[in-house]
Amino acid sequence: MEEKSSRKLSIAAAGTRDLAASRPLSESFPSSRKVEQGELAVPFRVIELAGGEPPLSVYDTSGPEGIDPRKGLPARRAPWIAERLAKSDGNVSQLHYARQGVITQEMRFVALREQVEPELVRSELARGRAIIPANIKHPELEPMIIGRNFLVKINANIGNSVVASSIEEEVDKLRWATRWGADTVMDLSTGADIHETREWILRNSPVPIGTVPIYQALEKVKGKAEDLNIEVFLETLEEQAEQGVDYFTIHAGVLLRYIPMTAKRVTGIVSRGGSIMAKWCLAHHRENFLYTDFDRICRLMKKYDVSFSLGDGLRPGSTADANDEAQFAELTTLGELTKVAWEHDVQVMIEGPGHVTMDKIKENMDLQLTSCHEAPFYTLGPLTTDIAPGYDHITSAIGAAMIGWFGCAMLCYVTPKEHLGLPNRDDVKAGVITYKIAAHAADLAKGHKGARDRDDALSKARFEFRWQDQFNLALDPETAHAFHDETLPADGAKRAHFCSMCGPHFCSMKLTQDVRDLAAEQSAGLAAKAQEFREQGGELYASDDDAAAQ
Amino acid sequence: MEEKSSRKLSIAAAGTRDLAASRPLSESFPSSRKVEQGELAVPFRVIELAGGEPPLSVYDTSGPEGIDPRKGLPARRAPWIAERLAKSDGNVSQLHYARQGVITQEMRFVALREQVEPELVRSELARGRAIIPANIKHPELEPMIIGRNFLVKINANIGNSVVASSIEEEVDKLRWATRWGADTVMDLSTGADIHETREWILRNSPVPIGTVPIYQALEKVKGKAEDLNIEVFLETLEEQAEQGVDYFTIHAGVLLRYIPMTAKRVTGIVSRGGSIMAKWCLAHHRENFLYTDFDRICRLMKKYDVSFSLGDGLRPGSTADANDEAQFAELTTLGELTKVAWEHDVQVMIEGPGHVTMDKIKENMDLQLTSCHEAPFYTLGPLTTDIAPGYDHITSAIGAAMIGWFGCAMLCYVTPKEHLGLPNRDDVKAGVITYKIAAHAADLAKGHKGARDRDDALSKARFEFRWQDQFNLALDPETAHAFHDETLPADGAKRAHFCSMCGPHFCSMKLTQDVRDLAAEQSAGLAAKAQEFREQGGELYASDDDAAAQ
Repeated sequence: MEEKSSRKLSIAAAGTRDLAASRPLSESFPSSRKVEQGELAVPFRVIELAGGEPPLSVYDTSGPEGIDPRKGLPARRAPWIAERLAKSDGNVSQLHYARQGVITQEMRFVALREQVEPELVRSELARGRAIIPANIKHPELEPMIIGRNFLVKINANIGNSVVASSIEEEVDKLRWATRWGADTVMDLSTGADIHETREWILRNSPVPIGTVPIYQALEKVKGKAEDLNIEVFLETLEEQAEQGVDYFTIHAGVLLRYIPMTAKRVTGIVSRGGSIMAKWCLAHHRENFLYTDFDRICRLMKKYDVSFSLGDGLRPGSTADANDEAQFAELTTLGELTKVAWEHDVQVMIEGPGHVTMDKIKENMDLQLTSCHEAPFYTLGPLTTDIAPGYDHITSAIGAAMIGWFGCAMLCYVTPKEHLGLPNRDDVKAGVITYKIAAHAADLAKGHKGARDRDDALSKARFEFRWQDQFNLALDPETAHAFHDETLPADGAKRAHFCSMCGPHFCSMKLTQDVRDLAAEQSAGLAAKAQEFREQGGELYASDDDAAAQ
Repeated sequence: MEEKSSRKLSIAAAGTRDLAASRPLSESFPSSRKVEQGELAVPFRVIELAGGEPPLSVYDTSGPEGIDPRKGLPARRAPWIAERLAKSDGNVSQLHYARQGVITQEMRFVALREQVEPELVRSELARGRAIIPANIKHPELEPMIIGRNFLVKINANIGNSVVASSIEEEVDKLRWATRWGADTVMDLSTGADIHETREWILRNSPVPIGTVPIYQALEKVKGKAEDLNIEVFLETLEEQAEQGVDYFTIHAGVLLRYIPMTAKRVTGIVSRGGSIMAKWCLAHHRENFLYTDFDRICRLMKKYDVSFSLGDGLRPGSTADANDEAQFAELTTLGELTKVAWEHDVQVMIEGPGHVTMDKIKENMDLQLTSCHEAPFYTLGPLTTDIAPGYDHITSAIGAAMIGWFGCAMLCYVTPKEHLGLPNRDDVKAGVITYKIAAHAADLAKGHKGARDRDDALSKARFEFRWQDQFNLALDPETAHAFHDETLPADGAKRAHFCSMCGPHFCSMKLTQDVRDLAAEQSAGLAAKAQEFREQGGELYASDDDAAAQ
């Protein structure tokens, strides 16, 4: 497997261009160091704290540092895969092993990463409630798990189009995205050099890479949707599976009979893959070949352990179209296909919307769980209003946090450029940080074990005026530090027991310390007082009928 | 009343400094014009659209344009107030009139603004479920209503501290905040020139202004909390009420016996007002004078129609402290005080947290409704995680949108600078836009009448590639336009039937048009096909047991 890492990375490298991800990790995360735990070398980032506080260890997706992108990352999974292939029955999926009771290295890796028992990982995989997207041709991968009994994950989309962007920029965006916390990355390239771009991305990616293969298949038939067929599609899948793509978005649920259901919609079909397949169906007046030939697709995918991300080709593109007949009809079909994939021991997750007002979000999650037999849900946002282009990372973070709490396993980020243009590196960072917030808010709301440790450490640092610790514990220490500098740039202010918002006289944190000191002196008396009031249960004004008198 | 508008605005004006709010409104909102409806001259902004679409009228808080801040805004309410004062019984509150069955001009103004019947406004006021904060000494005000059966409102905090900022900057922030949609503004100044700053702000504010009078009272006793007393507090209230402040945050619920309940908290007492009163209580070992002398405060407030915003001095400052004994004990007391205020016909809203994980938000709303007898709730966020300083507009927008949906009437914005520094004008704009998103998402989720018109108009523009209309209908047209320009700056791109995200071949919107054209040709056949499939209810794979075979 080893030689895979450097194959085909033939085009000119970044050279002297200023690439964001080449900046040392310590610049983004001061007082942090990467560690690798156990014989499987599971990565964590350890944040050192002041004030006698123990260091805090956090989940880390940044991957190995200081790697020449032309060489690619080390193939850490190569020996694990080789060992298993030696005795393989032709199906190498994690689901296949899990169902046989086998705990793979990937499962053990993930268990350590999530701080759970390996058996939990295996059993969740075996019942289809979680997936480990991990193509055997992507040995550089640091395995991760997607399922609602684990940490909520986020995906970042990158990819060039015919209009803009270069390969170097895309690789830089990939590493930039994982630095800030992207758990998986989708390469949605549609432009030139689609194969080459993907190769660079895979060889440099510590996280699972997803694609939408119909895009490349369409390029192969020169952009004519009606010329698509299952053969060119399978050929494309094989090409991408060989490169190491970990999951494929496949729009097999866009059925001919569902298309008329979109006729009255405000925004029709907004999924690219969905509209391509709808056009094919109508042009031939035949059923979607991704549906009719779904078995052949499964047979190919299990040879590599590529996971399905069953695409929601009929997702709503506006809140007006949310939760309509077309959307939920497709969801039922995705549930049907989930069972087919599971019969092949192929891993599956289900894609979801899109644009949905808050009151309609829970219905999406509940229906997905029942229709799709608890296969993990993976949603784009959803955006909770349509009126804020330029801020759709925020409109969608609201919906993403909520659906994450309700049980969604992975949240596909939306950047500030959504609907307007291609994200640059700043947009990628804004999208990732925003979605880390949504995912973490969901973990907290779910009461996920250990999730609140970081919040509590940061709150304690805040209360104790350990400013540097506050910054270093933040999702984005650079920005937190820079914002503090804007009003109080002096170095001493980072040790001050007040801040610019209130100034020294009005600092509630400082006042609270005074209150505590006073309370400590008076504690016995106060406790008695509190008890006395409690016993009376009395409200001063409760019987004061004169209060109304003027 | 007229002469009020220019009194005391004596300090040097902005002169040649570049103030954001002095830029013409049309620069921020192209293709928009302000209109004033009816004899009460209720302001709206009308957005002109292309493609034969009717213009869209939106709620507008930007106030009169082109006013010299040294002169202040016109005193539009002066004749209404004068007329009522002529026959007043000494209580001039909107609640007092509402309970007598009187529909004031303010109520009619608000009804037009909200597109509801005046009687709904009156009855909601009369039962205390909504307030119109409208001090009779603030004649420049364009009245607005806060209550859960109306549009969800947002508040923007401004104000200098001893550390930073000038009066000109604060007035500019005020106008900048209302331009982007702030429904009320709180002046939280604690620095020098506190009276003068407030005067400038009031004379230039078309929206209600709130303050926390204990800050100025503390200045009057030279920052020594223990030297505070009811006399200096009432004197401060009278001074501010005379200036025209529309609502006062008063921390009358911080009772002596509640203070020990905060001892074990991670972040103690984080409200400035709360910690000042806690310190006073402990220093004297006596009950909070704001509570014991609450009647005297009510008597003063009804003379001006200043509304209470009963402060949550014991709100949680970290998710660790959310929904604890101290917080909910205070809430009960706020409910008790609500009844006292209502006996005086003084309008009341209740302030709420703070930092609360998503799973604990609904409990806050439900308890507030029962404890406080449905008085409007006004919350700060809440922030749903503590780990993202620099992005707390986002952590809190998630909570704000949710609690707005659950029934919160007004959302106090949080800017990206929260916990780190004082917001500059960009932060104010980011905070306001983010909270307009949260409030609008809540209106949509509540199914508020007419709320979705703007979403639908924007979605339709999007689908029809009316790029300029998309920008113009956005909450922030400038940013939407600029983002589009970043990838496709050519003027022609604004008329193109594709965009940079996908390029022309992969445009789902364009493909959908093709699909619709094809479908129209085939419609009869397809409808029959769909019907046939529906009748069969058949799943292609449902009985395909061979699918598992490899």
